[in-house]
Amino acid sequence: MSNSAESISSPPSDSRERVKALVTSLQDEICSGLENLDGEGRFKEESWERPEGGGGRSRVMSEGRVFEQGGVNFSEVMGNELPPSIINQRPEAKGHPWFATGTSMVLHPRNPYLPTVHLNYRYFEAGPVWWFGGGADLTPYYPYLNDAKHFHQIHQKACDSISPYLHKVFKPWCDEYFFLKHRNETRGIGGIFYDYQDGSGKIYKGQNPNSPAAKTSNEIGNCKFSWEELFGLAKSCGKAFLPSYEPIIQKRQNQKYEKKEREFQLYRRGRYVEFNLVWDRGTIFGLQTNGRTESILMSLPPLARWEYAYKPAPNSRESLLTDLFTKPQEWSTDKSLVEKCLPYQAVD
Amino acid sequence: MSNSAESISSPPSDSRERVKALVTSLQDEICSGLENLDGEGRFKEESWERPEGGGGRSRVMSEGRVFEQGGVNFSEVMGNELPPSIINQRPEAKGHPWFATGTSMVLHPRNPYLPTVHLNYRYFEAGPVWWFGGGADLTPYYPYLNDAKHFHQIHQKACDSISPYLHKVFKPWCDEYFFLKHRNETRGIGGIFYDYQDGSGKIYKGQNPNSPAAKTSNEIGNCKFSWEELFGLAKSCGKAFLPSYEPIIQKRQNQKYEKKEREFQLYRRGRYVEFNLVWDRGTIFGLQTNGRTESILMSLPPLARWEYAYKPAPNSRESLLTDLFTKPQEWSTDKSLVEKCLPYQAVD
Repeated sequence: MSNSAESISSPPSDSRERVKALVTSLQDEICSGLENLDGEGRFKEESWERPEGGGGRSRVMSEGRVFEQGGVNFSEVMGNELPPSIINQRPEAKGHPWFATGTSMVLHPRNPYLPTVHLNYRYFEAGPVWWFGGGADLTPYYPYLNDAKHFHQIHQKACDSISPYLHKVFKPWCDEYFFLKHRNETRGIGGIFYDYQDGSGKIYKGQNPNSPAAKTSNEIGNCKFSWEELFGLAKSCGKAFLPSYEPIIQKRQNQKYEKKEREFQLYRRGRYVEFNLVWDRGTIFGLQTNGRTESILMSLPPLARWEYAYKPAPNSRESLLTDLFTKPQEWSTDKSLVEKCLPYQAVD
Repeated sequence: MSNSAESISSPPSDSRERVKALVTSLQDEICSGLENLDGEGRFKEESWERPEGGGGRSRVMSEGRVFEQGGVNFSEVMGNELPPSIINQRPEAKGHPWFATGTSMVLHPRNPYLPTVHLNYRYFEAGPVWWFGGGADLTPYYPYLNDAKHFHQIHQKACDSISPYLHKVFKPWCDEYFFLKHRNETRGIGGIFYDYQDGSGKIYKGQNPNSPAAKTSNEIGNCKFSWEELFGLAKSCGKAFLPSYEPIIQKRQNQKYEKKEREFQLYRRGRYVEFNLVWDRGTIFGLQTNGRTESILMSLPPLARWEYAYKPAPNSRESLLTDLFTKPQEWSTDKSLVEKCLPYQAVD
């Protein structure tokens, strides 16, 4: 990495094949890791083609031991011109054919003590420009501070292996992106999120110039990353997923729960639906532009509940989630969080 | 009504009070009718104020005998300037303070043989312009042709009491509006829908100049309605709701169902969520502009289910719903529908 504002570098001649190989092998590794973890559930695979070009491979697990439902997608798609919503962000792509490949995943465990998790790593080329995007974020129902800390630390390490600046921006960017404005809540405890990474200029390339992520990025200044470094980032973060999530499942999978916890989980899953259908740019864009609906909506939970004007009882585990764990926090460094979680036995 | 393209007429000096009185009395009548129908469930009322001006009265029934969840809202709100999405449709409103009042309702019965239903009647004033909007539509899970016919006939009669032209446009406009493009399905069997009715020009004032509703409206040509006529329309349609829906509930409420029917109902309720969060302009606008979230999302079902790549078995009652009852049909006049429903005992 070097600190300069030069224009973006060229990708290697075999860039598409290399990213495709990376994301398909990530899909394979993750699916096989999750099957081991579940012990009973198996992924069913379905390949599909896209009339406009390209296709994908969807893998879905239903009614596993741990996972009530989960999907891991791979896709490789292309077209003649990117939609206006992307062209606005990458004007250099205008008028050029485009290529995109990536993997995405959402897992909905059955036990309310196990967090839902999402991952996506993707790569675009369009005429003179290319970029990487992606991230992973965790959505607990009955949260534990050390689980949040663990998930963040593993992802921070993955980012730090490329540059110590990246995580400083990707962590707040995740809080910014996975935010339900109509609820004034984050979707969960976050993780990392990045988009439009072409190795030039500022790290933050999001839409809010006044956000914490933007401010941190401004303080850091321009950074130059090579294609290889950003490819390495996707690889390193993608491979961080299993170690970030598996230990949480192993630790909590046998915790007993009652109907009350299940009901709260289903209620909170409603928020997951609200985020994905109202705010997630990828989902909305896909649905409104003839994407493969079943693959896009694989992210929705198997069962969700809505209740008018529900409020958690004061000082309950449920209120801990809504008061502390759906607000941006410095999970790894803020010592005061321990005290806040201790009364709820929600540290470890 | 006269056939001319004059500009819109003036509302009476007490227009706001009269519409407010109409929609609050509709809310009262409908709630009391529904409580009688349910026999056990009672509406709980909550009044709220809007920081920017105005407020409302939400009434919710939960866990009734018939209604698993249902809400009937009244609101009266005002502001300094309408949002761009409405100004685009009504440019004359630009720069003027606005006023809006209306009632809206969604009912989710428990028994899968009972259809979900939605109603909304609203009125806007903004500087030199005013308009009425509204409608009602029915979403069955296990459909019956005669129920669809009944719901449509009652609403047609209500429209015809003002003018024989209105229903010809409002019926296809409903099919056009309550459409899930990403599923290529209507939300249900439709009913009536109208917006921006100021009594001038063409009846259809929607966004698709090539839609069936637009074509019918063009054939009819310009129509002039007075404020009183359009007020009468809201009254007549609002009062048509109970007679359009009650007989269906009374007829079907004791039909026995099994887990399979319940599962299909929950799955189809997922579509209701998808429509409301992805396509419904009112919902999205409300959520993105600091509306009262709990009142807006009262329309969501108490419980909903998603299943990857689900397809109904061929020639099943479930396939009848997706093949016939989520496509626009001429419910009242198309004789061929009887033959299509007979094999499923889905006529009466």
